[in-house]
Amino acid sequence: MPEQVHRLPVRVYYEDTDFSGRVYHASYLRFFERGRTEWLRSFGLQHDRLAQREGAAFAIRKLQVEFFLGATIDDLLEIVTRLQELRGPTLTFQQSVIRAETTITSAIVDVVTIRNERAVRPPRELLAALARIRGQ
Amino acid sequence: MPEQVHRLPVRVYYEDTDFSGRVYHASYLRFFERGRTEWLRSFGLQHDRLAQREGAAFAIRKLQVEFFLGATIDDLLEIVTRLQELRGPTLTFQQSVIRAETTITSAIVDVVTIRNERAVRPPRELLAALARIRGQ
Amino acid sequence: MPEQVHRLPVRVYYEDTDFSGRVYHASYLRFFERGRTEWLRSFGLQHDRLAQREGAAFAIRKLQVEFFLGATIDDLLEIVTRLQELRGPTLTFQQSVIRAETTITSAIVDVVTIRNERAVRPPRELLAALARIRGQ
Amino acid sequence: MPEQVHRLPVRVYYEDTDFSGRVYHASYLRFFERGRTEWLRSFGLQHDRLAQREGAAFAIRKLQVEFFLGATIDDLLEIVTRLQELRGPTLTFQQSVIRAETTITSAIVDVVTIRNERAVRPPRELLAALARIRGQ
Repeated sequence: MPEQVHRLPVRVYYEDTDFSGRVYHASYLRFFERGRTEWLRSFGLQHDRLAQREGAAFAIRKLQVEFFLGATIDDLLEIVTRLQELRGPTLTFQQSVIRAETTITSAIVDVVTIRNERAVRPPRELLAALARIRGQ
Repeated sequence: MPEQVHRLPVRVYYEDTDFSGRVYHASYLRFFERGRTEWLRSFGLQHDRLAQREGAAFAIRKLQVEFFLGATIDDLLEIVTRLQELRGPTLTFQQSVIRAETTITSAIVDVVTIRNERAVRPPRELLAALARIRGQ
Repeated sequence: MPEQVHRLPVRVYYEDTDFSGRVYHASYLRFFERGRTEWLRSFGLQHDRLAQREGAAFAIRKLQVEFFLGATIDDLLEIVTRLQELRGPTLTFQQSVIRAETTITSAIVDVVTIRNERAVRPPRELLAALARIRGQ
Repeated sequence: MPEQVHRLPVRVYYEDTDFSGRVYHASYLRFFERGRTEWLRSFGLQHDRLAQREGAAFAIRKLQVEFFLGATIDDLLEIVTRLQELRGPTLTFQQSVIRAETTITSAIVDVVTIRNERAVRPPRELLAALARIRGQ
């Protein structure tokens, strides 16, 4: 698997917090999804074009998330995204939210590629890009 | 215009609040949208079928919102929805959020009907339903 | 453990959907949280009073979610919530999203009780309520 | 009033879109709020420190939003924020969402400063920063 690690800075805004004064737990899933989207964009790919050119979209199949600490408003976080495994239609990501070198939250996310309502092999453009990295 | 007023109870959850301890201002727009959707459903209409049968969808054109008081977690609110005016493609709604008979937030919302990317007359089924009420 | 199962109807609105035409994956976490909040309320407890009376709040420690099918706008879902285990400060919930008797999504959620920034035994009022059920 | 205009790039993600394939209308309010927060940060101020040092928070009093076009997933937007007026406790902002030099959405937002549940003059640090700009 490509050892490439993608890092995305994310600022915490009002919208991400809740009544407890901390970041709402589901907001981390939005941050992780931004991380995977920017990981994809780092290969020159993006959702709208994949939908148009290959009729392909992504769907989450499984999530395992652990919450260690709470982020708060105005925090500057880093979303770390690494493709851990590629097997059949499933991309397994290892992701984490880091604040000042401390892990706040970590996740394993299984994503499948969908075409015509069925799980299929990932988009050719993505497979080609991953092969190029592996070959390096 | 039909004098019918639609009332929808809405409970405030964690997801609706922010760091200030109160409801996040954009959450009220989600509540108003639920109110308009249930107003529509009270006529037997819903978004998925309108999209399939008439190729019609709704888009917001203009919002004017005033915030008088802040709701907090566990509050039970009432979303009040009234069609104020129907002119060409535009439905103008007068909406408010009520807690224990006090107005928390009020809004005027202009919604247009969209078909093939163009603003068109509201769906026939809705016009027919509105005409029936007016005739009563 | 109390065998009580809590069921909460939830309607899918515009706010819950995304570009794929289906419910956004993080929206299910909001639905699950509404389910746990209403499970709590079924014992006469609610977040604001627990915060005031016991200085207690809840935080998610771990989530495991599986997504089997996609819900769409206007769907009427049922959120099923069951307390699976209570061990030290941790409440483990088994939850699912049901549409017309089919499971759309299921989750195991570990929640801890927090007081003064530390994980503590669940609120006394909740333990008392759970003991009453067990005794029945 | 300071003629300073603040510009914040914002990428559209899955979380921002809805079933219509476009950006959900309330998502623009989240974008505007990010813009005002970064405008504030451009003066060296941020929400958590204002809350701690001055017991001050901001609340929205009034919103007027017009929606001209719809943004879609993967769009790169620019949030433009300008303080239009400062009168008593009220900061009036003129904001817009721009895509490739076209205005998608524009808003007038009245924000008040709150201390001990009452509307008060804006934080001293902000007034001082605004006076410095005006003096330039």
